[in-house]
Amino acid sequence: MQVAAIGLGSMGYGMAASALRAGHTVWGFDVNSAQKDKFRADGGADGSLADIAGSLDAAMVVVLNAAQTENVLFGDNGIVPKMKPGSVVLACATVAPEFARTMASRCAESSVLYLDAPISGGATKAAEGRLSIMASGNTESFAAARPLLDAIAETVFELGTAAGAGSAMKAVNQLLAGVHIAAMAEAMTFGMTQGVDAETFLDVIPKCAGTSWMLENRAPHIAKGDYTPLSSVNIWPKDLGIVLDIARNADFNAPITTAALQQFKAAADMGLGGEDDAAVAKVYARGAGLTLPGES
Amino acid sequence: MQVAAIGLGSMGYGMAASALRAGHTVWGFDVNSAQKDKFRADGGADGSLADIAGSLDAAMVVVLNAAQTENVLFGDNGIVPKMKPGSVVLACATVAPEFARTMASRCAESSVLYLDAPISGGATKAAEGRLSIMASGNTESFAAARPLLDAIAETVFELGTAAGAGSAMKAVNQLLAGVHIAAMAEAMTFGMTQGVDAETFLDVIPKCAGTSWMLENRAPHIAKGDYTPLSSVNIWPKDLGIVLDIARNADFNAPITTAALQQFKAAADMGLGGEDDAAVAKVYARGAGLTLPGES
Repeated sequence: MQVAAIGLGSMGYGMAASALRAGHTVWGFDVNSAQKDKFRADGGADGSLADIAGSLDAAMVVVLNAAQTENVLFGDNGIVPKMKPGSVVLACATVAPEFARTMASRCAESSVLYLDAPISGGATKAAEGRLSIMASGNTESFAAARPLLDAIAETVFELGTAAGAGSAMKAVNQLLAGVHIAAMAEAMTFGMTQGVDAETFLDVIPKCAGTSWMLENRAPHIAKGDYTPLSSVNIWPKDLGIVLDIARNADFNAPITTAALQQFKAAADMGLGGEDDAAVAKVYARGAGLTLPGES
Repeated sequence: MQVAAIGLGSMGYGMAASALRAGHTVWGFDVNSAQKDKFRADGGADGSLADIAGSLDAAMVVVLNAAQTENVLFGDNGIVPKMKPGSVVLACATVAPEFARTMASRCAESSVLYLDAPISGGATKAAEGRLSIMASGNTESFAAARPLLDAIAETVFELGTAAGAGSAMKAVNQLLAGVHIAAMAEAMTFGMTQGVDAETFLDVIPKCAGTSWMLENRAPHIAKGDYTPLSSVNIWPKDLGIVLDIARNADFNAPITTAALQQFKAAADMGLGGEDDAAVAKVYARGAGLTLPGES
């Protein structure tokens, strides 16, 4: 199949490479031309997006947010008006369900299919073609996207026949994931004020009722003092901001999410936006005068 | 060994029964005389606490909080002054580490050993003798308590040679457990406002990065509409209150814990204190005008 991979960040690059490995013809695009050149060197096809849009079977859009997604699809050089009938957009950014519904209906005006397909799993699984995808869309969209889904995903949750349901589940998951990272940081640093060191925390809590997937994944970064960004602090003001936008529109009060968002914003304000998201622990440590592992 | 089990609530009763099963002589005491009579009928020994205190090898104190613990040990009819040298107090309530240190040092004045031994695992595991215990104390305390620990616990975390470390770890675990229950309720009801029903939530989230031990344990209660109290809402204003008391004394800011505590307090204010702690979802549902599963 002829595929455009738009957005070659840590997730998008791995997904594009997985599609290549599966035998598809893949054009890679990114605002960062170095990423684009790298993908060409790795086997990506050659050609401008304007030139190849009409020949695409699928466009995989792995950009930062709703505004970038809309710009790729319907901006000045938007691809949807150039795409052929029956081709499919795989929209992977975390967006509001209402935005996904709007995009799907604007694509339908051009007879282009739209799969609401936010992704989960991190850069390593993206590179391995083993993502989880929270997908919703009509039967035709799933059918058209299937060869691409097979190449990039280990698990495809089929969440409904209309765009929006996938994005809703993604927002639910991000709410929990973000809160659990910040709660892990709160608990770990709270423990340090009481003499519970990071290693003892890691020995005990994963065996107790207080554990979470994110705790087990991220707490070791703090214990090692390694903030190499596997997933960065900057993800969370964005994703929890989307959650709270959706919540506000639904008159839903989400005080725990709000508190977690504030901690990630504080981390970004400390200049930690590019560090691993476990660096939210530094907000707590600074407030309490604690020295974290690896800090001098 | 000769054991007093003081406090025969859902946890204490199971622990006392486990000690009986292991062949120890166990006297059971509770402010609720029905519980005391039931334990006698189940094989408990006969005698008043004042009469038997001097013959005890161990006193297992499974009461609600620090004030009740102190009253049992050192109140008007406190047992510690009557206990023999080398006997041990197993203190199981969730308390501040500083309180545990004070109790240990007051016990030492009577040559009574003190094991800081908060418990985790719930009523079912208590009844099975399979609790987790977050224990700290000197070598003599562990040695004196060992036959009793063997009877009631599957896992004993040995967290240090002084009282306080066990209670510190318990506070860390309770912080996480309480936050994760409230976050689960926030995420699940948030999802409902976006068309994600409880069953779909349960199909997807436990396989994703947003999962937690508490989510997998408690979310099914909401999906079934069953709020039979396996662990009640009332636990959390107490336990998160202890966490925040400790935090305040350490000048530690815990905004996520604070937000979770408010939700449990709101649930208690709605008259839900005796329901299962998953009923904190009703706070969110009422605020958002949602109908939860099982509600008419």
